[in-house]
Amino acid sequence: MTFDPKALTFNDAGLIPVIAQDAESLEVLMMAWMNAEAIEKTLESGKVTYWSRSRQAFWIKGETSGHTQELVDLRYDCDQDCILVLVRQTGAACHTMRRTCFYRAVRDGESIELMKPMV
Amino acid sequence: MTFDPKALTFNDAGLIPVIAQDAESLEVLMMAWMNAEAIEKTLESGKVTYWSRSRQAFWIKGETSGHTQELVDLRYDCDQDCILVLVRQTGAACHTMRRTCFYRAVRDGESIELMKPMV
Repeated sequence: MTFDPKALTFNDAGLIPVIAQDAESLEVLMMAWMNAEAIEKTLESGKVTYWSRSRQAFWIKGETSGHTQELVDLRYDCDQDCILVLVRQTGAACHTMRRTCFYRAVRDGESIELMKPMV
Repeated sequence: MTFDPKALTFNDAGLIPVIAQDAESLEVLMMAWMNAEAIEKTLESGKVTYWSRSRQAFWIKGETSGHTQELVDLRYDCDQDCILVLVRQTGAACHTMRRTCFYRAVRDGESIELMKPMV
């Protein structure tokens, strides 16, 4: 079946949540948003391209930082309202320079840091 | 630092997106939503508890289907607006009886099915 990004379910702002997962380590790296056009750009270019809600602009991941995400596979869920991208991540996925944005855990009621920024 | 669920960033509906990942295989299983109370219930009970947007009620995953998610670790991201739960998943995470909700991929413009329902 031909894939049509517009057949996915977007929120009121025209966005769909996207989970980025490292295609090798399978680490979950980050969650961000795409609109239908960002999905098309990602599929066409192979460069994972989000929609920045703060800047209201396309955001080719790593374009300024060099911490790019090369698309390996794009998947979507049963309800068609969430996307999973498997990526080859260069460097840190997180703007704090950590490999993943999910670097804090809750253990016994305390918030602890699981990793330091990459050097 | 003591963890306070209310310090996280919730959307206008008081919800935060939650990614569930299999703690052993590292497969991304599903994405759903929690409010602050669902986070507390999840941490206290060890049973992953979402907020059902359609039913407007707490949703203890697997309570009716038996396909429970036992909490292994709860993490959150840099912006404090997304949660990652590592879980021990019993059976299918997806209501279609597939192990993961992300069972479709886009390859060369076509949507293909990666797995069949579990038996």
